[in-house]
Amino acid sequence: MEKFMVYVPIFMALLGLAFMSAKRSWVLKQDAGDGKMKEISDFIYEGALAFLKAEYKLLALFVVGASVALAAISYIVPTTNILIVVAFIFGAFFSALAGNMGMKIATKTNVRTTQAARTSLPQALKVSFGGGTVMGLGVAGLAVLGLTGFFIIFFNYFMKGSWTSTEDMTVVLETLAGFSLGAESIALFARVGGGIYTKAADVGADLVGKVEAGIPEDDPRNPATIADNVGDNVGDVAGMGADLFGSYVATVLAAMVLGNYVIKDMGGKIEDAFGGIGPILLPITIAGFGILFSIIGTMLVKISSNDAKEKQVQGALNIGNWVSIVLTAVACFFLVKHMLPETMKMTFFGEGLQDISSMRVFWATLVGLFVGGAISSVTEYYTGLGTKPVLAIVQKSSTGAGTNVIAGLATGMISTFPTVLLFAAAIWGSYALAGFYGVALAASAMMATTAMQLAIDAFGPISDNAGGIAEMSELPKEVRTRTDILDSVGNTTAATGKGFAIASAALTSLALFAAYVTFTDIDGINIFKAPVLAMLFVGGMIPVVFSALAMNSVGKAAMDMVYEVRRQFKEIPGIMEGTGKPEYGKCVEISTKAALREMMLPGVLTIGFPIAIVLIGKLVYADNNQLIAEMLGGYMAGVTVSGVLWAVFQNNAGGAWDNAKKSFEAGVMINGEMTFKGSDAHKAAVTGDTVGDPFKDTSGPSMNILIKLTCLVGLVIAPILGGGHTSEARTPEPMAVEMPAQTIEHKESVTIKQSIKDGMAKATVKISKDGVSTEKVFTGTEEEVTAKIDSITK
Amino acid sequence: MEKFMVYVPIFMALLGLAFMSAKRSWVLKQDAGDGKMKEISDFIYEGALAFLKAEYKLLALFVVGASVALAAISYIVPTTNILIVVAFIFGAFFSALAGNMGMKIATKTNVRTTQAARTSLPQALKVSFGGGTVMGLGVAGLAVLGLTGFFIIFFNYFMKGSWTSTEDMTVVLETLAGFSLGAESIALFARVGGGIYTKAADVGADLVGKVEAGIPEDDPRNPATIADNVGDNVGDVAGMGADLFGSYVATVLAAMVLGNYVIKDMGGKIEDAFGGIGPILLPITIAGFGILFSIIGTMLVKISSNDAKEKQVQGALNIGNWVSIVLTAVACFFLVKHMLPETMKMTFFGEGLQDISSMRVFWATLVGLFVGGAISSVTEYYTGLGTKPVLAIVQKSSTGAGTNVIAGLATGMISTFPTVLLFAAAIWGSYALAGFYGVALAASAMMATTAMQLAIDAFGPISDNAGGIAEMSELPKEVRTRTDILDSVGNTTAATGKGFAIASAALTSLALFAAYVTFTDIDGINIFKAPVLAMLFVGGMIPVVFSALAMNSVGKAAMDMVYEVRRQFKEIPGIMEGTGKPEYGKCVEISTKAALREMMLPGVLTIGFPIAIVLIGKLVYADNNQLIAEMLGGYMAGVTVSGVLWAVFQNNAGGAWDNAKKSFEAGVMINGEMTFKGSDAHKAAVTGDTVGDPFKDTSGPSMNILIKLTCLVGLVIAPILGGGHTSEARTPEPMAVEMPAQTIEHKESVTIKQSIKDGMAKATVKISKDGVSTEKVFTGTEEEVTAKIDSITK
Repeated sequence: MEKFMVYVPIFMALLGLAFMSAKRSWVLKQDAGDGKMKEISDFIYEGALAFLKAEYKLLALFVVGASVALAAISYIVPTTNILIVVAFIFGAFFSALAGNMGMKIATKTNVRTTQAARTSLPQALKVSFGGGTVMGLGVAGLAVLGLTGFFIIFFNYFMKGSWTSTEDMTVVLETLAGFSLGAESIALFARVGGGIYTKAADVGADLVGKVEAGIPEDDPRNPATIADNVGDNVGDVAGMGADLFGSYVATVLAAMVLGNYVIKDMGGKIEDAFGGIGPILLPITIAGFGILFSIIGTMLVKISSNDAKEKQVQGALNIGNWVSIVLTAVACFFLVKHMLPETMKMTFFGEGLQDISSMRVFWATLVGLFVGGAISSVTEYYTGLGTKPVLAIVQKSSTGAGTNVIAGLATGMISTFPTVLLFAAAIWGSYALAGFYGVALAASAMMATTAMQLAIDAFGPISDNAGGIAEMSELPKEVRTRTDILDSVGNTTAATGKGFAIASAALTSLALFAAYVTFTDIDGINIFKAPVLAMLFVGGMIPVVFSALAMNSVGKAAMDMVYEVRRQFKEIPGIMEGTGKPEYGKCVEISTKAALREMMLPGVLTIGFPIAIVLIGKLVYADNNQLIAEMLGGYMAGVTVSGVLWAVFQNNAGGAWDNAKKSFEAGVMINGEMTFKGSDAHKAAVTGDTVGDPFKDTSGPSMNILIKLTCLVGLVIAPILGGGHTSEARTPEPMAVEMPAQTIEHKESVTIKQSIKDGMAKATVKISKDGVSTEKVFTGTEEEVTAKIDSITK
Repeated sequence: MEKFMVYVPIFMALLGLAFMSAKRSWVLKQDAGDGKMKEISDFIYEGALAFLKAEYKLLALFVVGASVALAAISYIVPTTNILIVVAFIFGAFFSALAGNMGMKIATKTNVRTTQAARTSLPQALKVSFGGGTVMGLGVAGLAVLGLTGFFIIFFNYFMKGSWTSTEDMTVVLETLAGFSLGAESIALFARVGGGIYTKAADVGADLVGKVEAGIPEDDPRNPATIADNVGDNVGDVAGMGADLFGSYVATVLAAMVLGNYVIKDMGGKIEDAFGGIGPILLPITIAGFGILFSIIGTMLVKISSNDAKEKQVQGALNIGNWVSIVLTAVACFFLVKHMLPETMKMTFFGEGLQDISSMRVFWATLVGLFVGGAISSVTEYYTGLGTKPVLAIVQKSSTGAGTNVIAGLATGMISTFPTVLLFAAAIWGSYALAGFYGVALAASAMMATTAMQLAIDAFGPISDNAGGIAEMSELPKEVRTRTDILDSVGNTTAATGKGFAIASAALTSLALFAAYVTFTDIDGINIFKAPVLAMLFVGGMIPVVFSALAMNSVGKAAMDMVYEVRRQFKEIPGIMEGTGKPEYGKCVEISTKAALREMMLPGVLTIGFPIAIVLIGKLVYADNNQLIAEMLGGYMAGVTVSGVLWAVFQNNAGGAWDNAKKSFEAGVMINGEMTFKGSDAHKAAVTGDTVGDPFKDTSGPSMNILIKLTCLVGLVIAPILGGGHTSEARTPEPMAVEMPAQTIEHKESVTIKQSIKDGMAKATVKISKDGVSTEKVFTGTEEEVTAKIDSITK
């Protein structure tokens, strides 16, 4: 049976997609309400589709361009197959499809949630979470289906379906990297473009509507109100979905690449019941089972009482989430025990080959699951309603906007302390347990319940929309009260979801980073080499500049929106009296255009810089591919370290400001006085929230994509730089460019490391020649060991 | 004559101090004005002294504690001599002395500048810049005197005044590192404490005085106004002085260490006219000549017309500055040519020994001078009055504080782009020219004119104070107009000075980083090792948390100040009518106490983390000093990369907000309408400036100290970790702790790198045994080379 294990993930994926279809039909069968509600919901639906359509046009162009570039690479680099282009296109297509599905269901569920809220809260939760479940399972199902499907295809194409060598498997996985690159490219546009869209609409609608015209949020007279609601779907649903789709695929891919290197370290061949590819199959199998457990988890999310409050709703979500995580942990134990050789060999840098028992891989997966949860908790502590840091910001609001802003910034900055320490411990711990394969498996385990995470995430904006529709349709107050409970829980899950997203992105990047080093076959990345150190600095700068560009884009787009709304208020007769109809479409168009225009520069920055580094490196060090590979590696490390910091800083500062502002709704005690909405302190808090909006919804979440895509681009470029698995790289021959004189390089080294402990000697002898290393370990008395060393080094 | 070259820097230092004394007498001889002016000036003087006294008490305790720790290290580590304690104490003492001298002259010059401004602007400039010159020359003179003096003493003590070996010289320089550590420790307290002091007083005075009581800035009725003026001296004069004193000493020291390694690469001994220590003597000699050229530069700073405006004053400063820089460049040419062997050998990582002509070192010094100037220009572009980025922030103020804050943050973030690229180019360029010795010499050349830079820097706060005294003494308006011109120029020089300070700190850190790697004798810092990568993350987080702590400290201290001022307003009868006398001393005391209390935690963080990493490393990898050294190196790199980014971001954002606010004084055009002070847009800009205040004056500048001190602490710890120059490190034996089993480690490696080009073969053979490497290069036909390789590897 075991040799069919490769089909298990596909089966799980199809199961997930089937369950999704059923859920989808159920949601769509729910009552979509009456006239006005339906009309508004249709506006949102059409606005979202308009954005998707415009986005897809642009993406199609991008995909064509990138395909040509990939085809060129596959022509130049012998180990990169032209099939990478096919994988790339499908990766992009699947990601877009997942986004499309998610957004459609979200924009159909919102009005049904509103309608359900007219009857009861449990029903409203069931509908809105049902929509989220469709989104989550769609993303996870398509990701596993695509990845496993292409793996099977390439495995059969390049290796005829059975193990030949790690070199051939590297070609399989390198080609598969195209799928991941396609997915992540779409994510860049979805996340950054979506982030700009949603905040441009939000800020623009507020500035003219609330501040200038003095009409409430979600008022149907405001022409930008539909764009604002579309933005919730574009940014928080489609953007987040594409982000996690990308992380999911990239993590599993990186773990597969590192599994291949485990096999290499074990002599290039292992005997197991899975055709010798157990370590490669493990991550994707964990992902497959994760879908199953997510389904089980989603079925547990329900409340019974109509009088339930935030706490009960949050509790229901937590139960579902934790059950799926615990089930995953249990499954990891059995899968690891079943699929991995009991003892593996792994190379540790500077420590040589070591024997690693499969149980240590299991501990590594637990590290991943624990850190994912812990980082979410830390995020909740720094951003949750009523926590100490948020209350401190509330207090500082009493002395004005300046002190509020300082307090928010400081909170975001301080929150990097536990987050980064946890993260560093995760890297160190999972590596110490099972090398970089352990790091990748930690990430894979954490990502296994992506479907559940996304369901929880997507439920928030759906409820937010439902509340907006209730407001715009002027439904009874109790409807809005019910959707507000869901929305409030959604705000908390949005913050913790961002914690999960950045933690997963960071671990994914590390796994990709490790895969990069093994692909290029360099001896590591030595930052004591000045060019490498210089690139570490440049890499560190990129997330900062990227964030600034994203923030400025929001500012520009919001101004466009302001001018349009002002124009409509002036030119459309009767608009303020509710007799004239605002041109919602114009505002949707402005947000759409602005988002697409403004995401170009950050996109170019992300993809262009790694390429520029390689080109400049080639100009200066034509014959030293190793140094160029190290420079690019230094850049990747700089982007990752700085990107994680800025993501945590911006997400948490933004989340804290948001909830500090929200605290005033129920009233807060400042200097012994209850203070409410409308007070000066509240106004100061609103200013803080304005600063935090682009932080937490545009630039902060974009960091995830930036760091993943940077490492992926590096991985795809890697074969150009590394000998990789070939002993002699074919020299690239671009036309009409004179190449430097040909250089053949041989490298041979013998390293002997000896230690004596309690009278027994141990020596590790590593002989490496032209990138192929053999390593032997001797133990015995000092004389014995010396004799053995002499015998092999002579 | 050449063998007396070692005394030339001392001679220059004494010349500088003599010139300083003369200038000091001249300044003190100037008229200090009449009754009220003198009284206020005395208050400021006494407040400043009160802070210094309190600070010195705390510092004395710290110095005693650190001395004990250093003594312990020198007992444990055989290559660290007990004399390091003496050097440390003197380093701390000299730094404190320089700060004391600078602050005293600044607080004496302020009132004399006010008095001079009653007669003419040229005279006011002459007096205020005279005070700055005293400060600059005092700092530079003491630094060179102390460093050269101790070098001569240790050179005679350890080596009997003539060359023995690079190992002995390493002991000399390692002991000298104590001087640098002492200086930088004082700088930590002066910069961080000073930064907290000045902003606590400033914000506190403004919040109650301007906002609550509605009295103008610098009004004598405000009890915090004296503390505010003391703060200018404590933060901008003493803090900046200690910062640059530390950079200056550390840069020269690092360059000397790397000069020693050049000699090592050249076979451990060179023959030159300077007793074989030319490369070691060069950096300190450049520093000595820099003092001379700074004196010449300061003499050129003058204006003749009483109707001069900011432009003429700035022009005068620029002339002096550029002349001193150009003279330094010319001197570098001759000194490099004279003092270095025509061709040197330097080891480049991964590329083996290379021949480097001395002229390439000269080009590296030009790189340093150019980048120092360019980074200052970039800073001016992003923060100057009337520049595009600042005007953009002004425009964004019209839509409220939120958009103003976002624009300011984005400007600071974007400004990292050119700065970091320039900086990366400087690292790469100077390294490519002459290895890390080139990087260190680039830094040394840049720092050579420190005296001039400080003179320009210190002149700003002196003029600011002078204006305050004019206001408080109710002098005629034209006096304030004249001091305002000087103050306005001072604001620009403050921003560019910060650019210079961070650029110098960053290059200094890099040089220290390079010295660290050579001290520990590790093979570089490989961030592909997970524990090293984890520490890179942790290091990257530290500057962010440090900044947050500093910002929060300002907030807390400012609140203390607010409560005290409110109390005085309430309890002192007649205070608002000008008949009751405010208790200035109480406010000074609050700022002093708060600054000293709040700087402890950041200080502990800075010094404690590197030590914690070594301890944890020892627990986990008891027998792998190399890995621990790499982990600490990764941490240092993380702190430096992230610290530079956050320094540039915070300094420039703060500077831009400040000048955006200032723009309203002369009026700005927003949406076609002239807008002035008091408008809503101006109020929004004031909010931005409030956020920027701790950014640019507390947390931003603290980054300089953080990164330098981190690298210095690493350097002092280095001998514990590295075999360094000894072949067998003595095992540390702390009491009552059971040590792990003793491990002896031998490491031996042979690396052969061969290349064939146009039929000729070239091979580099590196044999390294227990940390001692020899490297040979053969060229010839392939057979010849193979034969030669065989002959030495057998």
